[in-house]
Amino acid sequence: MDRPLLIDGLQYANWSKTIFREMHEAGMAAVHVTICYHEMFRETVANIERWNRWFERYPDLICPGRTAEDVRRAHAEGRTAIVFGFQNPSPIEDDIGLVEICHQLGARFMQLTYNNQSLLATGCYEAEDAGLTRMGREVVGEMNRVGLVVDMSHSGTRSTLEAIEASKRPIAVTHANPAWWHPALRNKPDEVLKALAATGGMLGFSLYPHHLRGGPDCTLRDFAEMIARTAETMGTGCLGIGSDLCQDQPDEVVSWMREGRWTRNADYGEGAADAPGFPPQPSWFRGNRDFPGLAPALRAAGFDAAETAGIMGGNWLAFFERSFGPQA
Amino acid sequence: MDRPLLIDGLQYANWSKTIFREMHEAGMAAVHVTICYHEMFRETVANIERWNRWFERYPDLICPGRTAEDVRRAHAEGRTAIVFGFQNPSPIEDDIGLVEICHQLGARFMQLTYNNQSLLATGCYEAEDAGLTRMGREVVGEMNRVGLVVDMSHSGTRSTLEAIEASKRPIAVTHANPAWWHPALRNKPDEVLKALAATGGMLGFSLYPHHLRGGPDCTLRDFAEMIARTAETMGTGCLGIGSDLCQDQPDEVVSWMREGRWTRNADYGEGAADAPGFPPQPSWFRGNRDFPGLAPALRAAGFDAAETAGIMGGNWLAFFERSFGPQA
Repeated sequence: MDRPLLIDGLQYANWSKTIFREMHEAGMAAVHVTICYHEMFRETVANIERWNRWFERYPDLICPGRTAEDVRRAHAEGRTAIVFGFQNPSPIEDDIGLVEICHQLGARFMQLTYNNQSLLATGCYEAEDAGLTRMGREVVGEMNRVGLVVDMSHSGTRSTLEAIEASKRPIAVTHANPAWWHPALRNKPDEVLKALAATGGMLGFSLYPHHLRGGPDCTLRDFAEMIARTAETMGTGCLGIGSDLCQDQPDEVVSWMREGRWTRNADYGEGAADAPGFPPQPSWFRGNRDFPGLAPALRAAGFDAAETAGIMGGNWLAFFERSFGPQA
Repeated sequence: MDRPLLIDGLQYANWSKTIFREMHEAGMAAVHVTICYHEMFRETVANIERWNRWFERYPDLICPGRTAEDVRRAHAEGRTAIVFGFQNPSPIEDDIGLVEICHQLGARFMQLTYNNQSLLATGCYEAEDAGLTRMGREVVGEMNRVGLVVDMSHSGTRSTLEAIEASKRPIAVTHANPAWWHPALRNKPDEVLKALAATGGMLGFSLYPHHLRGGPDCTLRDFAEMIARTAETMGTGCLGIGSDLCQDQPDEVVSWMREGRWTRNADYGEGAADAPGFPPQPSWFRGNRDFPGLAPALRAAGFDAAETAGIMGGNWLAFFERSFGPQA
């Protein structure tokens, strides 16, 4: 039997040879990795330099993932294609020309906001969401042109709906779950999920405990059944996994994610003052090696073999195929 | 008859649609363009952004030139492939990781020095040339690895000889002439020319008046005969043109080239206090449209048709082929 083609639509691990080896052992064909939370352009370039060194050092485990073809080749060779993404538009600073530069350097996903207001749109933690800004509309057009995917995982509802409408190419919510299942600020209401599905966009289901019903105690069965119920309204072709896995990260990293440089005070985000660190992962999803184990649960929840293969990686691959190149 | 494949190994024009159209009319298959004199990394990226806009705006005239194949395709389509180069290592700042980043952004040539001492080597205007620095040796190795050509046009003799020796791949002197013909500081002594030829490097003959015997009054015949005499010791396969054409540039640009931000005083470089601007070009080489006219003069100086085609572009193309990709 052919090895299944597995793609994770978002991770932010504390990258190391150990993790690259675990990706390899799990048979991950591609992982969309966050290379920026709050970094500006020059800092993001330094992060890309780190990845260039890793590509050079571990060519048997990882390779750059800039096209769907890179992912197919990685899969055939037993390597993991690494797709770069930004959780914030900070790397383009105030300069629309940096959209193409970042694409040239390998970026393929960019969130328009990370929780807060950005120059482009409103994050899901702001009290008011005024939708896409003037610059936001321009940048969406430029991202469409070059093939940088608009990701609205951390954006407010109005901004997300406006991005779906303004974008001439399908967008993604790489890592979130439906709000009906677990009403976290980061999970998405039905109107967003429907608009996403109607326009050919992608939803990556998150395994970050704060996005799960029951948190770390969520069962694999409940998670898989939530996906099955989501498929009833969205269909299956637009569904994938975006685990939001923060494997091996120390707790100080979650402060960087939440606080960046925008506050001098503690911000607990989805955590709390008495639990400020990373929440424990569910026992059945602690790292890359647990990824293949999602497939049997999807089958048990009612998906057939082809649908399961799609959710486990095939749907992301098809989305990469139509999203990463210049606009036709 | 096939159109000849023409390549200019260095220009720094005041780029415009007018000049791109002239390149097109001249049938230039490729031009190595200087996109940085003294700019640091972020400023160089801004220059690349300008080029990205031009590629978008004038797709019928120009296209990016990152591989020999790009140049061949441009030639077949009647466009000019633009090859990026730096006259100074300032874009990599103090960070060896930026060598690969700049290559990813399209840079294919980098001078280790521009007249002055750099972090890497010594320029031809310094009183003492101590050769390659510690960082210089590391950077040459990294340039070799990724496929960024070492250009020693503005370097001192010792630094140039050490770069030729340290580099595992052939280097270039993109724009200079033999010192025996015209003893300018920027022209190269025989020992450099011999070492360059012996290692498969390339020499691009300059048409900048300060590098010409007789300056603006130099005749095309004298220029072509100088090339013929150079071929007697270097052979013909390592010879090309690197016109150093500064078409349509205002005189303040020559101050930027000479003074950058390293002095508060006037530096006249190859000029003089009573002639601080750009010197007038010889009447037979005022712009891109004059480039094809070099070929008959080479024939008249004794080169056969194949040798002439090599000097007019074929030799640069073969050099691009073996130089622009990762090290084997």
